[in-house]
Amino acid sequence: MLLLTLDLLGIFVFAVSGGLLAVRKRLDIVGVVVLAMVTGLGGGLIRDVLIGALPPPALEDWRYLVTPILAGLVTFLWHPAVGRLEGVINVFDAAGLGMFAVAGALKAHEYGLGPVPAAMLGMLTGIGGGAIRDLLAGQVPVVLRDGEFYAIPALIGSAVAVTGVHLGLPLPVVAVPAAAMTTGWRLIAL
Amino acid sequence: MLLLTLDLLGIFVFAVSGGLLAVRKRLDIVGVVVLAMVTGLGGGLIRDVLIGALPPPALEDWRYLVTPILAGLVTFLWHPAVGRLEGVINVFDAAGLGMFAVAGALKAHEYGLGPVPAAMLGMLTGIGGGAIRDLLAGQVPVVLRDGEFYAIPALIGSAVAVTGVHLGLPLPVVAVPAAAMTTGWRLIAL
Amino acid sequence: MLLLTLDLLGIFVFAVSGGLLAVRKRLDIVGVVVLAMVTGLGGGLIRDVLIGALPPPALEDWRYLVTPILAGLVTFLWHPAVGRLEGVINVFDAAGLGMFAVAGALKAHEYGLGPVPAAMLGMLTGIGGGAIRDLLAGQVPVVLRDGEFYAIPALIGSAVAVTGVHLGLPLPVVAVPAAAMTTGWRLIAL
Repeated sequence: MLLLTLDLLGIFVFAVSGGLLAVRKRLDIVGVVVLAMVTGLGGGLIRDVLIGALPPPALEDWRYLVTPILAGLVTFLWHPAVGRLEGVINVFDAAGLGMFAVAGALKAHEYGLGPVPAAMLGMLTGIGGGAIRDLLAGQVPVVLRDGEFYAIPALIGSAVAVTGVHLGLPLPVVAVPAAAMTTGWRLIAL
Repeated sequence: MLLLTLDLLGIFVFAVSGGLLAVRKRLDIVGVVVLAMVTGLGGGLIRDVLIGALPPPALEDWRYLVTPILAGLVTFLWHPAVGRLEGVINVFDAAGLGMFAVAGALKAHEYGLGPVPAAMLGMLTGIGGGAIRDLLAGQVPVVLRDGEFYAIPALIGSAVAVTGVHLGLPLPVVAVPAAAMTTGWRLIAL
Repeated sequence: MLLLTLDLLGIFVFAVSGGLLAVRKRLDIVGVVVLAMVTGLGGGLIRDVLIGALPPPALEDWRYLVTPILAGLVTFLWHPAVGRLEGVINVFDAAGLGMFAVAGALKAHEYGLGPVPAAMLGMLTGIGGGAIRDLLAGQVPVVLRDGEFYAIPALIGSAVAVTGVHLGLPLPVVAVPAAAMTTGWRLIAL
């Protein structure tokens, strides 16, 4: 349940970051929703494909589809001033990074991967959606430009979460601080 | 059989759209064939990976390999006037969009996905190949620039096809008009 | 054992090519390591996903993770003169192309694919990592610009390796010359 909430929340904020980028690139409402969906679902789809969790829940559970569509619509209607969107995109992206990395790592761990691969996959889940978003929008992915405040916090947050669960700590005690740490680390750079 | 025909026909016309874009970017014959293959097979590979139909038929059935290679070669030899290729690319792309979306949705439905996920996957099959084509050729994917005449018709065509099959209508009665609707809707925008 | 060595060696040299491109694009150490990892592991991950070898060994075996990280770090520290990196990138890329194509084709063959699909998948393994590298770095993939010295040698090397193994020849007798042929063919163009 906590994992699902974290996952959906991560999808929502990541999708908002994709929608905002689409708004900044002056795409229309469908372009905004599509980029929101790809950004919100991309990282998780990569993870599910790699651990063989097929078909991925994102395609079977309507909540995974409705969440990024809603995020795209909200974004399209809600941005009154397109002025300094870059800053806002980065804040939502940072929140998504933390939630995705931790949820990705814990899901990979649940599927039987060892701690190190699970942490790597958490990182990949965290950075994947944003990388696809940036590629589609025609810009070099932020993860390559700003690695020590992007890939590294995602990796460390994932590792902390996996280690905690491995040691038998309860999920909420582990997941929330780990995600917050990743997000906070990322926010420091902005 | 109808699904296979639709699939191969969709691969062919999509591959032509990829080949034409490669010609316009002044790539040589191998570049033209490679971009034709990626465009023709990309959407279906994404679909097969996501529904877990592995290895995908595109890798096991020689007809799936020969079709886009042929399309690439034909394109390379056949374009006498490179003048106004953009229009032609878009027509072939529209035809591929319709056939891929419907074939993708029906295959996903065959694999046991519910109507809504099957329609989403049909849309993804339809827009995936063209998105990869545009990314590789260094341009923002058409689906983001022109969504209401691209992603939306693919989604609606997929939904119509899945609904029809779900209601027990015979496949040809469902698939052909659904694909034609998607393609026609797309063509209106050109 | 030979396949593993070929695979790790291929990952290393491909990862170096990614790291060097990252250096040329003036990315920091994390960006260099991330691009090295993506380039080194990308082609093999695509192959493993398509043949259904999930989760891929690259996520389960620490040697697959350590190799490209090491390659990225070595690259970051080792390039004293950034001057004519393009030539060096291409040499490492050619070596990776040969090793990846052959290892990819032989692994696909091991997993029961027929000779033609196995050779195609070998080519895809060979060109996939470099294509992702170029996309992430914001340039048109080399495979599209320079096909007859890139995709074609990868395909022929893969076909030679698969044919040899199919005929019952011992692996080293087949794999090493096939990889060398692909790499040599590619180097001729530089």
